[in-house]
Amino acid sequence: MENGYFDDIRKEYVITNRFPRREWLNYLWNRDTVAVFSQFGDGNSWSLIGHERRSIEVGERLVYVREKEGNTYLINSRSPKASYDAWECHVGLGYQTIHWELHGLAVDVTFLVPSEGKAIEEEIQVSNRSSSQLEGEVIPLLRPSVALAGHDYGKAEKASSFCGLLYSYLGYHISSPDPYLFLATDEPFTSFEVSGERFRGHYGTYEDPAALRDDKPLSSAPLSSGSDFIGALVFPYALKPGETKTVHLTLGVANDEREASALANEFTKPGTFAKEMALQKEKNEAYTGVFHLESPDKTLNSQVNLWLKRQLSLGKDWGRVYGKGFRDVTQDLTAFVSLDTACARQRLLTILSHQYEDGNPIRMYEPDFYYPYNDGAVWIPAAVLTYLNESGDLSVMDEKIPYLPGKSKEHWNLADAFCYTDYQGTSYRETVYQHLKKAMDYLYSSRGERGLVLFLGGDWNDSMNAVGLKGKGESVWLTIAAVKAYREFLTILDILGKTEEKPLYEARLKTWQDAILSYGYDQDHWIYGYDDEGRKIGAYESEGPQIFLNPQTWAVMAHLTDEKTLAHCMDTAEKELICDYGYRQCYPSYTKGDDHIGRISYLQPGMVENGAVYCHGVAFKIVADCMLGRHEEAYRSLKMIRFDNPKNLNNGMEPYAISNMYIGPDNPMAGYAPMSWITGTAGWFYRAVTEFICGIQATFHGLRVTPCLPDDWDQVTCSRLFRGTMYHITLMKDNASYGEEDGNIFSGNLIPVDERKERYIRFHVASKKD
Amino acid sequence: MENGYFDDIRKEYVITNRFPRREWLNYLWNRDTVAVFSQFGDGNSWSLIGHERRSIEVGERLVYVREKEGNTYLINSRSPKASYDAWECHVGLGYQTIHWELHGLAVDVTFLVPSEGKAIEEEIQVSNRSSSQLEGEVIPLLRPSVALAGHDYGKAEKASSFCGLLYSYLGYHISSPDPYLFLATDEPFTSFEVSGERFRGHYGTYEDPAALRDDKPLSSAPLSSGSDFIGALVFPYALKPGETKTVHLTLGVANDEREASALANEFTKPGTFAKEMALQKEKNEAYTGVFHLESPDKTLNSQVNLWLKRQLSLGKDWGRVYGKGFRDVTQDLTAFVSLDTACARQRLLTILSHQYEDGNPIRMYEPDFYYPYNDGAVWIPAAVLTYLNESGDLSVMDEKIPYLPGKSKEHWNLADAFCYTDYQGTSYRETVYQHLKKAMDYLYSSRGERGLVLFLGGDWNDSMNAVGLKGKGESVWLTIAAVKAYREFLTILDILGKTEEKPLYEARLKTWQDAILSYGYDQDHWIYGYDDEGRKIGAYESEGPQIFLNPQTWAVMAHLTDEKTLAHCMDTAEKELICDYGYRQCYPSYTKGDDHIGRISYLQPGMVENGAVYCHGVAFKIVADCMLGRHEEAYRSLKMIRFDNPKNLNNGMEPYAISNMYIGPDNPMAGYAPMSWITGTAGWFYRAVTEFICGIQATFHGLRVTPCLPDDWDQVTCSRLFRGTMYHITLMKDNASYGEEDGNIFSGNLIPVDERKERYIRFHVASKKD
Repeated sequence: MENGYFDDIRKEYVITNRFPRREWLNYLWNRDTVAVFSQFGDGNSWSLIGHERRSIEVGERLVYVREKEGNTYLINSRSPKASYDAWECHVGLGYQTIHWELHGLAVDVTFLVPSEGKAIEEEIQVSNRSSSQLEGEVIPLLRPSVALAGHDYGKAEKASSFCGLLYSYLGYHISSPDPYLFLATDEPFTSFEVSGERFRGHYGTYEDPAALRDDKPLSSAPLSSGSDFIGALVFPYALKPGETKTVHLTLGVANDEREASALANEFTKPGTFAKEMALQKEKNEAYTGVFHLESPDKTLNSQVNLWLKRQLSLGKDWGRVYGKGFRDVTQDLTAFVSLDTACARQRLLTILSHQYEDGNPIRMYEPDFYYPYNDGAVWIPAAVLTYLNESGDLSVMDEKIPYLPGKSKEHWNLADAFCYTDYQGTSYRETVYQHLKKAMDYLYSSRGERGLVLFLGGDWNDSMNAVGLKGKGESVWLTIAAVKAYREFLTILDILGKTEEKPLYEARLKTWQDAILSYGYDQDHWIYGYDDEGRKIGAYESEGPQIFLNPQTWAVMAHLTDEKTLAHCMDTAEKELICDYGYRQCYPSYTKGDDHIGRISYLQPGMVENGAVYCHGVAFKIVADCMLGRHEEAYRSLKMIRFDNPKNLNNGMEPYAISNMYIGPDNPMAGYAPMSWITGTAGWFYRAVTEFICGIQATFHGLRVTPCLPDDWDQVTCSRLFRGTMYHITLMKDNASYGEEDGNIFSGNLIPVDERKERYIRFHVASKKD
Repeated sequence: MENGYFDDIRKEYVITNRFPRREWLNYLWNRDTVAVFSQFGDGNSWSLIGHERRSIEVGERLVYVREKEGNTYLINSRSPKASYDAWECHVGLGYQTIHWELHGLAVDVTFLVPSEGKAIEEEIQVSNRSSSQLEGEVIPLLRPSVALAGHDYGKAEKASSFCGLLYSYLGYHISSPDPYLFLATDEPFTSFEVSGERFRGHYGTYEDPAALRDDKPLSSAPLSSGSDFIGALVFPYALKPGETKTVHLTLGVANDEREASALANEFTKPGTFAKEMALQKEKNEAYTGVFHLESPDKTLNSQVNLWLKRQLSLGKDWGRVYGKGFRDVTQDLTAFVSLDTACARQRLLTILSHQYEDGNPIRMYEPDFYYPYNDGAVWIPAAVLTYLNESGDLSVMDEKIPYLPGKSKEHWNLADAFCYTDYQGTSYRETVYQHLKKAMDYLYSSRGERGLVLFLGGDWNDSMNAVGLKGKGESVWLTIAAVKAYREFLTILDILGKTEEKPLYEARLKTWQDAILSYGYDQDHWIYGYDDEGRKIGAYESEGPQIFLNPQTWAVMAHLTDEKTLAHCMDTAEKELICDYGYRQCYPSYTKGDDHIGRISYLQPGMVENGAVYCHGVAFKIVADCMLGRHEEAYRSLKMIRFDNPKNLNNGMEPYAISNMYIGPDNPMAGYAPMSWITGTAGWFYRAVTEFICGIQATFHGLRVTPCLPDDWDQVTCSRLFRGTMYHITLMKDNASYGEEDGNIFSGNLIPVDERKERYIRFHVASKKD
């Protein structure tokens, strides 16, 4: 059954099947508010309070219709028994509209998160598409989060200073932040309910609420209680054929009653919703022009031109929503830097202020997470370098920013690693350059007896959380990543003209290369590392997995050694790790828990890091394939982890987002994609397509074009905005190798920056790499 | 519609209506585990980890029947559409049994919490009551709490070393406490499911799960995931007429796989469940003999003889479940001291170790709560005195126990008062006597400009949480309570023979009496206090309530002044505060939020402290009425807050528990009792009946008998176990006033202790007090 289609003209994905394998999620957000929506409209929303999150509402976002002398029905029922004359869900850039028709009445419900503030907005349009007068009531319902702590109280009542309902949290603390919620509307309502219990009836359900079983108005009574608050408002309609009634609702957060009232009145001014819709479209379209792809792969075009950018910008604003991983923010930055360069500069300064004075960053902030991670530093040079390459702005290097106080290990806390206290920066500030250098020096100082970088509580692989807790285990992958980081740092030194600094880092890099070649290679692949007991991980002699994907791909990305060895290891990975759903993170999966390894060994085979197709890792592989000129392997990998992989059509994925993983083949739920949106894969997938398959890369001195196109692509056109110039680049496959601009032919692949606003360049590239 | 009946022979309450106004709850617990059960069997359970709680399972506890070539149905459906040939829920002492019959099959499901350990147990009996062979499957389902933190994982699989399922929490912390759960059974199962999603189907419900729509076995597949774990086991049955199949399940917590396995095997040994049932009955019956009432009021007999004691013992073991309020534990102690004197001694030592070195206790422990409360000290002397009176054990006074370190105010934290770190006791220890004396001295040191005790962040009235934060507001009620506390302390000094200490405390007591008479009286009642701005609370000039119940009743209990004035104030309370559901806590309710008063002013009229019939306060009133000889007022008050108040039959209360409150008459939900079980009312109600209406009070020198019987009670018999002697006391109403024992007549009301094991005493009392 088809689940829906991309509508590229309206920049929407239209879901046509109410019941895909699992809920299809959409995120709507601004910098203060984030909300999730399923195809039924339900989900949760939160706003920021300092470094914490305040729940705004949870679960159901319902709309009932009570026909005059007719039926009462829930238009967004999850029950397969409920059927409608028409149903569609339009997932838009910054909004979501659900459309129903029944008995001649069409209802369109649109949700958005306004461009600023702590609120969600909802528009309900009720239209008469029949040939006779239709009368009844439309009743939207939300579930505001009022009582925020276990034993505390909340209150709800009709507002006196605006049209709507006012909710307040009554905690022990007379001055908790943001204790008010308002549900404001621009249309008069005839009755309301704030108690879920009164609405459903004590043994009732939202599917069949007691309060709507007859024609009575809702109670319109207030409530003080511990939980179970709702906001349901009754709006009557009487529509001639062709007529429409529109109602707007805003559920928002406020610090006091006065602010609630002011915001409520502001949000319900005529035209506010339409203005916000326009702003959302504008905001989201602003950066969609930065890179435009016209390839023979229409789905990839939709993904790259719209949806990957959108997923990436969720990461930009909210990290992984549950918190901001140092590693996640830096990686997202390297991907969105072209889409929002100013924000990338700001993020760079923010993340470096989450680095301790010894150069090692904290694992995660907002909330802070004090587990002993050692991989933070390796992600920094790429973030700095991509920013310099994109912007040409060297001034960032001299910005002075604070450190987290002291040495990172003074803060590690195995017993209680999550901490919700806000970090207070030290007064000790240094430049971005010095932060960067300290990160590089920290990595070299944190080596074990083999000269490799210590594992501690984990590296990229979060589930390998016990492998180095005794301070002896060493990570081959992390050392490869350190080599890559050093190469980037050396490039930065070149850009800055600090060539006198290079020999020291070149020498260290060589030391690491030697150590990896001595201790990190096993017959035909790079191993993952050594645990505290000195046992090899990811080698043929290992219990559990004998090969991991990331060391093979990162060795390529790090130019670790000669291309032949790198390619040989990639061949091994290709052969050992492929499955119908993509490439496994490791093989075979752990089948026995091991307290010297950690969580990965306890996860069931095929789950997450333990042998799932972890898409983040597959995105690394696409990049590595391209770097080795393996265009078919790259494109095959890309298509395998896409929602439309023909061998895995029942994977459950939203077509408009990239999955975190597909469960691996040795698991009973093989192929299923339970988690979407919140993943670093979006950024790497975007970079893989734009910088490696299309091959258009920003460098400090200009755009470099080194495409690696699939066999069946004869021609690709990309528009890329870079330093104020729009480059229209056409890649032609015709067994040649030269560029053309304004009739002039040139060789090489670097396009130096100049002053023109628009440039049209054609590259003639080989149809087969070899 | 009748909801059920007391079965005093089987010591059960039998619920016969599946749908009372709200769920009827039952608590089952031991010292490590507490679980709630509705009449459907569903609810939550927790176990203790240090000072915190670990969720064991949440929500549904279901049982499905899948008939061979017949129907599949959920036997504990909440849907009114589901109907059975028979249904009953037996609420027992320490267990709960739900009975269903459909199509000739009877299913009895019994839950219990074993007498020790972190586990809940379930017995399922399937019986053929038809005249032909019945075949099918019975499928119990629980929802274990596996992944305990937001971004962490859990795992579930078939156990290899016991019959059942093994669940484990896979957090970042390799060594979180109690990460394992086991679901063990003593019968073979043919298939199982651990994934809620697979069981329900993604858009399915527990009411109509996808996995049971056909005859297929459950998936029997393992799961690693973030949430949505279940445990469903398929047990086939093939029963001849009259045959029964029995299955036992245990869901328990363990620290590692080995312990899980050992416990699982232990719990599934033959006869374990039956032994636990016997232990539960024994354990719960052990103290039911301590006080036995035979009055003309049969319902009161059931309450006093069984159910109040049970509710009280929940308080004894778990405080208010969400935490252990200092005030709550001390009050519960004064009520359960006769039922479990050894435990009372232990609790006394525990609570005094939660007192700071300055004499003021912490507001709550487990978890600790650092809000600036000032009422803790007034509850201590009653706890000490009732223990001495009951036990005659003076040795307790010399026990040395630690303090919380420093002064209480150094620990107050308005912004973040809840703290989950365990308290570390100081090495500074003093005797119980010194703790008690420091408490008394603290109170006197904490007076305001009128000489009354300071309010700070609250007294008994938790919702008056802003009235004294500036350190100026003074509480009249708290000062009355201090007078009562001093009287109890003076009695203790008498018992200890420390009469040289008395003059100081008598003088201070007098100062307080004078201050209350000067500043605490308004025309015809005692006011509640003064806020930080110097405004009177609970006076005729006040905005908001002009009278509060507690100062009037406590003035009587404290023997504050002459009986005429006390009675006059009680008359005012009687007149102003009565309503159909009992007596309001205050009148009129606050209708406008006031940041100098606090949460009470923001609560809606009629809710909780803001004008509800707060039953705890009504229990104080029954005591005060009795102390003034107002037997009709006392008994009327008692009957009004009972589940069977004829003016409020639709209150929603479980007949086998006492409510925390009935919502007040100025609220749209007037009369409703939303919260039961977790309330100090149980203890005071128990004391009101046994010590004040029946009038049988323990004193240090013997039992004192000062009954205050209702008019329509001609005769009451009470059996009271006191210091090893069972007193069979008959109270005869015949306008006389003397006692009779073994044919000897005596005057006075004190029965001195002697060596006999059984004594039969008859009191002839006046039929009307006046």
